[in-house]
Amino acid sequence: LSSKFESLNYEICENQLYRDAEFKSGHQLNLKRIQLNRWIACFLIGIFTALAGVVIDILVSTSANFKFNYVLQTLVDKCDDGEAIAGGGCMWLVQLAWMAYNCSMVFIAACLVIFWAPIAAGSGIPQIKCFLNGIHIPEVVHLKTLVVKVFGVSAAVAGGLCAGKEGPMIHSGGAIGAGISQGKLHKKLDPGFFREFRNDREKRDFVSAGAAAGVAAAFGAPIGGVLFAIEEGASFWNQALTWRMFFSAMIASFTLNATLTYYFKQDGLLSWNGLANFGVFEDKKYTIWEIPLFLLIGVIGGCTGALFNSLNYRISEFRKKFVSNKWQRLMEALLVAAVSAFTGFVTLFVVDDCVPLGLGENRTEGLNRLYCKKGEYSAVANLFFANPEESVKSLLHSPIGSFKPTTLLIFAIEYFVLSVWTFGLAVPSGVFIPALLTGAAWGRLFGLGVEWLFPNVAGMDPGKYALMGAAAQLGGVVRMTISLTAILLEATKDMTFGLPIMLVLMMAKWVGDFLSDGLYDLCIELSEVPLLGWNAPKMARNITAGTVMRSDILAMEKRVRVGRVMEYLTATSHHAFPVVDRIDESDISRLPDYGRLEGYILRTQLVALLKKRAYRHEWEEDLVGKMMSEQDFIEIDSDEVLPEVGDEDENAWMDLSPYMHPHPHRVPLNASLPFIYRLFRGLGLRYLMVVNEDNRLRGIITRKDVARFR
Amino acid sequence: LSSKFESLNYEICENQLYRDAEFKSGHQLNLKRIQLNRWIACFLIGIFTALAGVVIDILVSTSANFKFNYVLQTLVDKCDDGEAIAGGGCMWLVQLAWMAYNCSMVFIAACLVIFWAPIAAGSGIPQIKCFLNGIHIPEVVHLKTLVVKVFGVSAAVAGGLCAGKEGPMIHSGGAIGAGISQGKLHKKLDPGFFREFRNDREKRDFVSAGAAAGVAAAFGAPIGGVLFAIEEGASFWNQALTWRMFFSAMIASFTLNATLTYYFKQDGLLSWNGLANFGVFEDKKYTIWEIPLFLLIGVIGGCTGALFNSLNYRISEFRKKFVSNKWQRLMEALLVAAVSAFTGFVTLFVVDDCVPLGLGENRTEGLNRLYCKKGEYSAVANLFFANPEESVKSLLHSPIGSFKPTTLLIFAIEYFVLSVWTFGLAVPSGVFIPALLTGAAWGRLFGLGVEWLFPNVAGMDPGKYALMGAAAQLGGVVRMTISLTAILLEATKDMTFGLPIMLVLMMAKWVGDFLSDGLYDLCIELSEVPLLGWNAPKMARNITAGTVMRSDILAMEKRVRVGRVMEYLTATSHHAFPVVDRIDESDISRLPDYGRLEGYILRTQLVALLKKRAYRHEWEEDLVGKMMSEQDFIEIDSDEVLPEVGDEDENAWMDLSPYMHPHPHRVPLNASLPFIYRLFRGLGLRYLMVVNEDNRLRGIITRKDVARFR
Ligand SMILES: Nc1ncnc2c1ncn2[C@@H]1O[C@H](COP(=O)(O)OP(=O)(O)OP(=O)(O)O)[C@@H](O)[C@H]1O
Ligand SMILES: Nc1ncnc2c1ncn2[C@@H]1O[C@H](COP(=O)(O)OP(=O)(O)OP(=O)(O)O)[C@@H](O)[C@H]1O
Ligand SMILES: [Mg+2]
Ligand SMILES: [Mg+2]
Repeated sequence: LSSKFESLNYEICENQLYRDAEFKSGHQLNLKRIQLNRWIACFLIGIFTALAGVVIDILVSTSANFKFNYVLQTLVDKCDDGEAIAGGGCMWLVQLAWMAYNCSMVFIAACLVIFWAPIAAGSGIPQIKCFLNGIHIPEVVHLKTLVVKVFGVSAAVAGGLCAGKEGPMIHSGGAIGAGISQGKLHKKLDPGFFREFRNDREKRDFVSAGAAAGVAAAFGAPIGGVLFAIEEGASFWNQALTWRMFFSAMIASFTLNATLTYYFKQDGLLSWNGLANFGVFEDKKYTIWEIPLFLLIGVIGGCTGALFNSLNYRISEFRKKFVSNKWQRLMEALLVAAVSAFTGFVTLFVVDDCVPLGLGENRTEGLNRLYCKKGEYSAVANLFFANPEESVKSLLHSPIGSFKPTTLLIFAIEYFVLSVWTFGLAVPSGVFIPALLTGAAWGRLFGLGVEWLFPNVAGMDPGKYALMGAAAQLGGVVRMTISLTAILLEATKDMTFGLPIMLVLMMAKWVGDFLSDGLYDLCIELSEVPLLGWNAPKMARNITAGTVMRSDILAMEKRVRVGRVMEYLTATSHHAFPVVDRIDESDISRLPDYGRLEGYILRTQLVALLKKRAYRHEWEEDLVGKMMSEQDFIEIDSDEVLPEVGDEDENAWMDLSPYMHPHPHRVPLNASLPFIYRLFRGLGLRYLMVVNEDNRLRGIITRKDVARFR
Repeated sequence: LSSKFESLNYEICENQLYRDAEFKSGHQLNLKRIQLNRWIACFLIGIFTALAGVVIDILVSTSANFKFNYVLQTLVDKCDDGEAIAGGGCMWLVQLAWMAYNCSMVFIAACLVIFWAPIAAGSGIPQIKCFLNGIHIPEVVHLKTLVVKVFGVSAAVAGGLCAGKEGPMIHSGGAIGAGISQGKLHKKLDPGFFREFRNDREKRDFVSAGAAAGVAAAFGAPIGGVLFAIEEGASFWNQALTWRMFFSAMIASFTLNATLTYYFKQDGLLSWNGLANFGVFEDKKYTIWEIPLFLLIGVIGGCTGALFNSLNYRISEFRKKFVSNKWQRLMEALLVAAVSAFTGFVTLFVVDDCVPLGLGENRTEGLNRLYCKKGEYSAVANLFFANPEESVKSLLHSPIGSFKPTTLLIFAIEYFVLSVWTFGLAVPSGVFIPALLTGAAWGRLFGLGVEWLFPNVAGMDPGKYALMGAAAQLGGVVRMTISLTAILLEATKDMTFGLPIMLVLMMAKWVGDFLSDGLYDLCIELSEVPLLGWNAPKMARNITAGTVMRSDILAMEKRVRVGRVMEYLTATSHHAFPVVDRIDESDISRLPDYGRLEGYILRTQLVALLKKRAYRHEWEEDLVGKMMSEQDFIEIDSDEVLPEVGDEDENAWMDLSPYMHPHPHRVPLNASLPFIYRLFRGLGLRYLMVVNEDNRLRGIITRKDVARFR
């Protein structure tokens, strides 16, 4: 486990200041004001997350316009003048132009990531998952990351990589949640809004609202968004928070849709949408005998998903070792962009699958003219060169005969390989859409197979199987359960396929879990984050607190000398120190013998006390003038440089009792690991004290100590 | 707070037996088997819940058939022969026959409830809510209750009361969940299935699955069902449990639909359904300027909902005092049945609202012939005499002009009053459908008003407003939030109106909460159940464990004499006794001075030990032969009669150490109430020990001690 990651401080420090606040006049009113502000912040989070989605969508579609209208059309027109339409050197010209365009886009994305915000690479869902789990990953919700994410993913998708914009949307949502709730853009640009939310607890809640809004904007799935935020993190179900998350998600979904329909000047102003919507099934029916087939699809999805994950894991390990250099990573990104474009063209050339117009072609005009006769379009181009969301839609809804089986097979394999390679590149890129697309392709192929086997059954529709395949592949890769069902149901806008989608996802998860871990969990494992899963490891009933804890504790007495505090703060990086009633020399060990547990104090609080010089030279001296207020403790960063303390102050006394948390959670030495695990998960703990039968401090357990057991 | 209600024991007792189980060979396999059984149980819960729904639906529709085809049609035919069609003595005949039929139905329902299972009265949602919150309400999930609920609600609805079958469906689901997981029908009928689930923890989880399945069956809303179960109870979000609840819900929804479509021989075998489905909106659109109107509807709904609640509360208080006798309660039920039928006929007679056929009439054939010309039907009959679900549908989907404003107004008021009176009668009856129907009526009226004010706006549709009105009224009454949104979205089968429904529900909740409590909370308050809400009471930071706890504890030493145990068990009804290392006489108080906390032991465990005579006469005597196994502790009921203990055993020794929970949750005396509250809610606690700075036992806190603070 890496020591780079610290825990978020979700627990309320119920010290004297906190308790006294209740006696202040206007306290009730203040609570109401804060409550109102929470709703306002959630409203803003919804709006801004949607706007991030709008920016991405508009950038991608503008780029696609440019590519098709200028790059392609112009060249093809030129070719038309000179040479024969199909084949020849002209094709190479088009291909080169296309590749050049894609590579330059990817160059932008990769440069942004590599040189400015490396944390913005990838989908961002693992990072958000960790954050919601209670782990602070540096820079993960910073403004810089947000900007790189939004523009980077637009460039990556515009550059034709096998990348989705949905994962990055979720990360962006989280970053927006953090940004808005903190009410400032940067340390130096601080208008001072929402000061009351400047603590880890509130921040984490707002990040979950942002993540929900991100899902809602990405898939038009507000309920799915809420379920996602809960499934992936919120440590306990809190009704009020859930309701606010739902509000954010609804607002995001609404705003995105209203803005995009306005921008693209379509009618139906406020009907439902989202970045990725998969169209409505006209012919919604399935029969009971199809359910075994769906289950089979689930099994296949579990296997291919696990294959995806383990291949990607290998590649990531390889990358970690051999592609560590910035320039190497840039080159790799460019290489993948080139190979992706190249693969498309080669397939287009090799697989001759021209289909009469009108079967649901996407916008791939110029290309069709290159490879197909008039009145026909290329099914391959439809898959490889259109917007991936559009490709998913055509796989789901095109009538039978729109795609040849070979096309589907080759596409599924190629896209699978490309997306394995793409995920983990130094560009912002999600895995949702690539997985859905791969799955939809082989699912449709499966559907064609079923149709071929049972030709006499009416009501067959390969699109249905494409949907199941998409669900299976995605489920096999990410292993999300209830939230993914909700997302897919909302994105297809009806509930008919609820049961089969659920069954497929369940099979995919079971089979997949049998073969490998989920993709996000593998990412998290690779980055050595101390994530706490849902359940304690199996066979842990006999592991006790005594084994889990660290016993070489650094603790303090309530009256402590400034010198001692400085020593602790400089010598260690611990973020909290238990407070005990007395510390004695021990005869038997190097470690002192700690007395009864009285509380704990955070590093940030100690830093604040030192900064404000809240100490006195004689213990009896009056401290009234130096009593700190709650305000003084806000916004002290634990990484902050320690204040200088002069030699004359070294021996001054600090009184910790009004500031420490006076009743920390504690367990006896014989508490079992599952018991400790439930405390950590159920209450969102950061520190747990271990005491002996006399309530004397014997050890400390942090998230990392617990996460060590897998 | 009533002492009738005990807590469920959600905590795992991690004693020596539990720990040793891990060392047994086959332990891993056993865990897997249990896991598999959980899924099987959830599958069965889904199936049987759906079947309960099917039974209710078929009974209700058979009765309606009978009423319309035989009672009504025959009489009306007779009238046709003799007298003029409209008016006259014949109408009285029809009316009397109708009332007699309804009253006899309600008689059945009321007798079942009053004389067999009083707990089955009402909607059952409050009871399920309490159960999921961790409170054991006697008989609430028994087979008897289930039977009465299913047949009683069928009879009540068939008897034309303003009663829904959805709430009772949820209760039935919960009862089925409990029944199936316990694998026995009754104490005496025990085939011995699912022995491993015979504890409160598993039971509670399965009841939540059953409740989710109930919602899914009632509304065709599996996601809504899961959210309901979580919102109303599950003390913490547990991913695996949620997934199983979802599975149950899906299966229920699927089975209900498949069976009903088969029974009613409709096509579209596996499209979505549920008992109450509100039809699909053809014209799904709304514009931004309508949102303030929706908010206004939300405000109205909050007010009328609060009015409903406080009126109903008054009536319930009145009932508690003056209608306590069984016969009085029966009479009241019959009276309400008669008044309901009478009101319908009077309205039919007074309000002359005949509408051309083809605007979406329900089956009210005979009645139409009585009051309307040929080729017309009575809009009033459509509302009063059809199946309430059908009436909701026509309010939502009928074209403009199907209902006169006066009809709507009169209907809304009359139905409101009747449903206030009906809820709380001694029959199983839910409030969902009555509230939806009332709301849909005034919502549609609101829509007509809007149309009249803005006649030039195209796309106006009163049905949309009816939907919002229905949501507002229901939200104002029950105050559920996210789960209700999901239920309504799933029941209307599309997501278009997601944002407005959410906004309406939010407004209704805010306004309603300002004016009164939610209906279910009022029910719970009336029955004095120690429910723990989501949040600790406000202004509780300075209430400490020392204030909350009971300090006159009865505790034991680890070695305890049988006589002492018997004394404790007979003299008190406490369900757990702390175990301390020593008990000394105290000089200062009547209470003994307890030593260090070592664990706690449950009453059921003590009873089991006594039953198996697990004690010895000399402390040094070997106890190996008498060591209990885990099996011995299962299925000991705490209400069980205590075994007789002979005088010679009074002085024998019991050794509690291998059986007690060795590391109970503890807090120091200065822990605050919110802190304790979070522990109880987050971990589903039943007992919390309070210790002093030396870890000496000073008090005990149970759910009731916490719930006392509001
Ligand atoms: N006050 C302390 N005295 C001694 N050991 C400590 C103390 N606090 C934490 N530890 C131990 O140090 C190790 C690293 O701890 P960790 O980094 O989790 O603590 P932290 O930096 O205080 O908190 P976090 O990283 O969670 O923000 C853990 O094994 C933990 O038990
Ligand atoms: N062992 C005990 N000794 C003394 N008082 C107790 C003991 N157990 C519970 N109490 C107190 O008795 C009162 C009634 O308790 P309650 O009925 O909640 O306990 P219980 O019957 O043991 O558990 P429950 O009712 O939750 O199943 C509470 O105030 C509680 O603090
Ligand atoms: Mg650390
Ligand atoms: Mg009790």
